[in-house]
Amino acid sequence: MSPDPDPFYRVHVFCCTNRRPENHARGSCAARGSVRLRDYMKARAKELALPGVRINSAGCLDRCEVGPTVVVYPAGIWYRMESTEDVDAILEGHIRDGRPVTALMLKNDAKDDAKDNAKANE
Amino acid sequence: MSPDPDPFYRVHVFCCTNRRPENHARGSCAARGSVRLRDYMKARAKELALPGVRINSAGCLDRCEVGPTVVVYPAGIWYRMESTEDVDAILEGHIRDGRPVTALMLKNDAKDDAKDNAKANE
Repeated sequence: MSPDPDPFYRVHVFCCTNRRPENHARGSCAARGSVRLRDYMKARAKELALPGVRINSAGCLDRCEVGPTVVVYPAGIWYRMESTEDVDAILEGHIRDGRPVTALMLKNDAKDDAKDNAKANE
Repeated sequence: MSPDPDPFYRVHVFCCTNRRPENHARGSCAARGSVRLRDYMKARAKELALPGVRINSAGCLDRCEVGPTVVVYPAGIWYRMESTEDVDAILEGHIRDGRPVTALMLKNDAKDDAKDNAKANE
């Protein structure tokens, strides 16, 4: 494979905003408040004027049980964010200051929280 | 910054499915057929049973003019896909066989196709 190119976005954040039915066994990020937190993250990132940063919505990232989840690429670091304070910590600690927020990180080797991480559904 | 962890997904693909109003100057990926292509990509990835691959929808990736766009992380390689043949080429060439599809790649240094790549809106 050829070398990776310079990234188009220095930091590209995807916030799961998937909503499952209220009684779904896995729950969903939207049912846990992800839409409000995504909105706050976008507004706050704009205020901070972080260079080369893009905050996006995403469909189901399939880690519903530990949501609301976000993943920060290209580093591939996953977080659970439950409050605007968590969003601030991710934006200011990790993205602005380059210090991933250990307390909010999901373990990437904890595959058991996803039904099947190889499946390709939304 | 601490070393990057092993990725939760080996290959994480985000397909822009944003739709702008029909008369918007920039157009949009959905107006150019991205929803159908995203559906096809998800189904085809499942058929191919590619290990550790996740296909997701995303909000506006802000490269509307060159859409339908997809970005493949953690490599950070961007593509324009216009047909199911393009999707097959990305899934089979890049993701299964490890050979990025040069003919479909967007140049990451072509910043001029985005209004402002640092902005944090959807």
